[in-house]
Amino acid sequence: MSQPAAKRFPAPSIDKLPEDIRTRLLTVQEKSGFIPNVFLTLAYRPDEFRAFFAYHDALMEKEGGLSKAEREMIVVTTSAANQCQYCVIAHGAILRIRAKNPFVADQVAVNYRKADITPRQKAMLDFAMKVALEAQEVSDADFTALAAHGFSDDDIWDIAAIAAFFALSNRLANVTGMRPNEEFYLMGRMPK
Amino acid sequence: MSQPAAKRFPAPSIDKLPEDIRTRLLTVQEKSGFIPNVFLTLAYRPDEFRAFFAYHDALMEKEGGLSKAEREMIVVTTSAANQCQYCVIAHGAILRIRAKNPFVADQVAVNYRKADITPRQKAMLDFAMKVALEAQEVSDADFTALAAHGFSDDDIWDIAAIAAFFALSNRLANVTGMRPNEEFYLMGRMPK
Amino acid sequence: MSQPAAKRFPAPSIDKLPEDIRTRLLTVQEKSGFIPNVFLTLAYRPDEFRAFFAYHDALMEKEGGLSKAEREMIVVTTSAANQCQYCVIAHGAILRIRAKNPFVADQVAVNYRKADITPRQKAMLDFAMKVALEAQEVSDADFTALAAHGFSDDDIWDIAAIAAFFALSNRLANVTGMRPNEEFYLMGRMPK
Amino acid sequence: MSQPAAKRFPAPSIDKLPEDIRTRLLTVQEKSGFIPNVFLTLAYRPDEFRAFFAYHDALMEKEGGLSKAEREMIVVTTSAANQCQYCVIAHGAILRIRAKNPFVADQVAVNYRKADITPRQKAMLDFAMKVALEAQEVSDADFTALAAHGFSDDDIWDIAAIAAFFALSNRLANVTGMRPNEEFYLMGRMPK
Amino acid sequence: MSQPAAKRFPAPSIDKLPEDIRTRLLTVQEKSGFIPNVFLTLAYRPDEFRAFFAYHDALMEKEGGLSKAEREMIVVTTSAANQCQYCVIAHGAILRIRAKNPFVADQVAVNYRKADITPRQKAMLDFAMKVALEAQEVSDADFTALAAHGFSDDDIWDIAAIAAFFALSNRLANVTGMRPNEEFYLMGRMPK
Amino acid sequence: MSQPAAKRFPAPSIDKLPEDIRTRLLTVQEKSGFIPNVFLTLAYRPDEFRAFFAYHDALMEKEGGLSKAEREMIVVTTSAANQCQYCVIAHGAILRIRAKNPFVADQVAVNYRKADITPRQKAMLDFAMKVALEAQEVSDADFTALAAHGFSDDDIWDIAAIAAFFALSNRLANVTGMRPNEEFYLMGRMPK
Repeated sequence: MSQPAAKRFPAPSIDKLPEDIRTRLLTVQEKSGFIPNVFLTLAYRPDEFRAFFAYHDALMEKEGGLSKAEREMIVVTTSAANQCQYCVIAHGAILRIRAKNPFVADQVAVNYRKADITPRQKAMLDFAMKVALEAQEVSDADFTALAAHGFSDDDIWDIAAIAAFFALSNRLANVTGMRPNEEFYLMGRMPK
Repeated sequence: MSQPAAKRFPAPSIDKLPEDIRTRLLTVQEKSGFIPNVFLTLAYRPDEFRAFFAYHDALMEKEGGLSKAEREMIVVTTSAANQCQYCVIAHGAILRIRAKNPFVADQVAVNYRKADITPRQKAMLDFAMKVALEAQEVSDADFTALAAHGFSDDDIWDIAAIAAFFALSNRLANVTGMRPNEEFYLMGRMPK
Repeated sequence: MSQPAAKRFPAPSIDKLPEDIRTRLLTVQEKSGFIPNVFLTLAYRPDEFRAFFAYHDALMEKEGGLSKAEREMIVVTTSAANQCQYCVIAHGAILRIRAKNPFVADQVAVNYRKADITPRQKAMLDFAMKVALEAQEVSDADFTALAAHGFSDDDIWDIAAIAAFFALSNRLANVTGMRPNEEFYLMGRMPK
Repeated sequence: MSQPAAKRFPAPSIDKLPEDIRTRLLTVQEKSGFIPNVFLTLAYRPDEFRAFFAYHDALMEKEGGLSKAEREMIVVTTSAANQCQYCVIAHGAILRIRAKNPFVADQVAVNYRKADITPRQKAMLDFAMKVALEAQEVSDADFTALAAHGFSDDDIWDIAAIAAFFALSNRLANVTGMRPNEEFYLMGRMPK
Repeated sequence: MSQPAAKRFPAPSIDKLPEDIRTRLLTVQEKSGFIPNVFLTLAYRPDEFRAFFAYHDALMEKEGGLSKAEREMIVVTTSAANQCQYCVIAHGAILRIRAKNPFVADQVAVNYRKADITPRQKAMLDFAMKVALEAQEVSDADFTALAAHGFSDDDIWDIAAIAAFFALSNRLANVTGMRPNEEFYLMGRMPK
Repeated sequence: MSQPAAKRFPAPSIDKLPEDIRTRLLTVQEKSGFIPNVFLTLAYRPDEFRAFFAYHDALMEKEGGLSKAEREMIVVTTSAANQCQYCVIAHGAILRIRAKNPFVADQVAVNYRKADITPRQKAMLDFAMKVALEAQEVSDADFTALAAHGFSDDDIWDIAAIAAFFALSNRLANVTGMRPNEEFYLMGRMPK
């Protein structure tokens, strides 16, 4: 690939990376067939890399009341509001795969209010967008509204924490000029 | 103290926390005389706690082109834009102490454009606010403007990463209803 | 297809449409293999249908200084700003085909400032977005800036008129609840 | 009149216009005593002129549940929000005449919420403004609220389509620098 | 007149007002032929009435570098941005009279950027709008830009103070529901 | 003190001020131990000074349904929204003293929704912020909501008038570059 992982910061050479980071990169490469640019970009700062992915995994990989597809919906919806090209395109691919649905990622990226999702998922995204865009106005009424859809306080923490983590991630991607790998655009779009 | 660490989530009992987290809490308590509520609130989720503070320390404690007071200025300024009570009041205290200046924290919290800081620091805060509020518009021109004030690309990463990390932190504090400890209000206000 | 063309208004039966409108629908169906939902939705109002497509064709199909791919770029970029699901997804497909580029539509939909397009195209989209979002601030300086990229006054009219026409179109689609046909999602994504 | 019809594009010479357009201009001139500048400005592009006025007439001249004065109220209110000088001043005149009311146009142009209109008309304008300014948030609840004031789905289409059509019109007027004819300022202001 | 001076607060009976206030009301009535509703509305609070008009007169009636018509332009432009019906309609009348121009008030009320005014007046209104809408961003650069148009520091104070005073006045009018007297609508519109 | 009262306008020499203004300055100096910079800055314009403080006293010093601490809460909250350094810091001090509470000023300055105040006070500040930021949308429903918390129409006038008066004051302070005196930062922070 001739394009850099990020426009404004150099990706370090993989063989000079600390052992744990190189191992993570090679593992993801083996599993996915390529190294997503977020790994290469953040490897420029090993300590931040480690904290970023530890946080990411704590929110996105653990068990809980939200399905993995729902977590990716939060990522795609709030990242589109933040106009983060990398996150919308990369996590759009993951959402299509996890939801086994070739349409939902583009729908929520443009306007989640009109997406083919459940009322419970719309309430989840309403709250995620409030956290992303005006968290200072979150109130007890938001918790009550989410509880009415069956969300526990722990689910609410998860929704908020995912939206908050991608508030961080979107900003890093926009500042570094992180590029979505070309592989992401087509992933999960084919009917099986 | 009769008030909870956060309004909407319970702080776990310190003696039931994992060893590494309990140790960190006790260490900060010994050093500061109290446990800042961000530690108690995030201890509700040990894995997120660990990633959060690892990220925080990687950005705020390391050496680099920005002074520690300047990093706190970024925190206070962007957290005020996000209306995060905990972060403005707690980091306002740290900024007063690190800058040895009883006025600057209140000044940047209300309107950094009018604060008694250097033109270089204003340029730093202009960029931090752009990252906090409209990172999608960051462009090469921002890097050029910062370079004209002597900021290296690594400094720019630091400014952006601190603003981005507190984009996360501010949202968590606003959703959980995290309270600033009363000790923070007066810290660093007295002439020595 | 089980889903209606638009959520909130019924599509008329094709065999009851006025002759000219039925002919247009059948022609597009023969050419594309399906009838895009904008045709079915607007057929509910024959006079508006005729005016809408006459306007559309006058702007999108004629010769001129903007390539057809560039016109679709304007559509996708401004429609994303207006959160119009139908227009982003349908015209995203057309853009991919006209630009012979499977990536550009998703890039401009999320953040045109970071898309792999020329500086001239960025200036074109800067202006299109100004027309879409704050046309009241358009000034002679915008014309000067565009002229510096080689745009004639007629090109500027075209950019503005396309952005203005989709200001209309996006609003109709959002109010009627117009749905993108499933065919659009995958069109133009495959390397040939 | 020494001032051009529009600041940034030349009005074509009337005697060189296509026959149908020249006829329309002369007809309106005979009826009104002058040619409103929107006709002269758009005549620069005959195909767009034809589509524009066909669309305009389909929305503004036909029978339906909205009175002609109410349609003009939608135009003036949303055009003021878009800061379109031509549309507010020209359609303000038409509104005064159609409503036989010398006050209502200035009232809705400044703040429709405080105008001397019926609650049903305020609901109509609330929705028109939502279409003008944030159509992406239109939901079924808006339809329900309008139905409670007696608006049919066809009326709702009309409100939305008028607001959407003037979203287009306002942008064209602001980009071309279209000037309100001086005749409009005083029309309909005199008690009869 | 059957309509109250303000929708939400009663106007006091003129003969029960303090002497100085009654005298002012009768004087303006004699001069204008009617009592503008701002006098009747604010008379509800005699001390505030006195301070309000003392402030008003100090800014609007004194000599200085701005013509009286220019001061009214500031009022109409910023009051339109604040959607204050009373101020736009009442001061629009005064502006027409003071400028001896039947068009300028409607032009600046809708979009001052397109009004038939001088570049110096546009710079004055750019600054007045900045004071009205985002005074926190006023900087030395604004003073420099105004100086380039020949404005002294005292002129700048005047522009800012008028915009600031009507920030107060617009808010009072919107909260009390102050109504423009019908006399204002036609004043100054006739060629002499 | 080496810093001027305001950055962009000179403070007049106290001994050259008109007698009434000099007396007021000396009185406040005797009472407070220093002359707050708002007095020195506005003394540049004696007539405006007199009107300003007459208005201020009419709103802030009289008896009424709002406590003096509540009035200062309105000032601090709305002045923070307007990013007025002088008003937040100076009135923050007064609020701490009048409320006998060292925490409340910083709390409402950052995010009044999370402050340790009563629901009645939150409703008061919700309305004050609406007046400060979007007074054009004030409606009868706001009066009803406030009445439910026991506010009379006169109280509502007071809330609105204080928010409106500081809309003026904040703009003057931001334009003149008024500086908070250093004395304010620490006032009212000590437990007694």
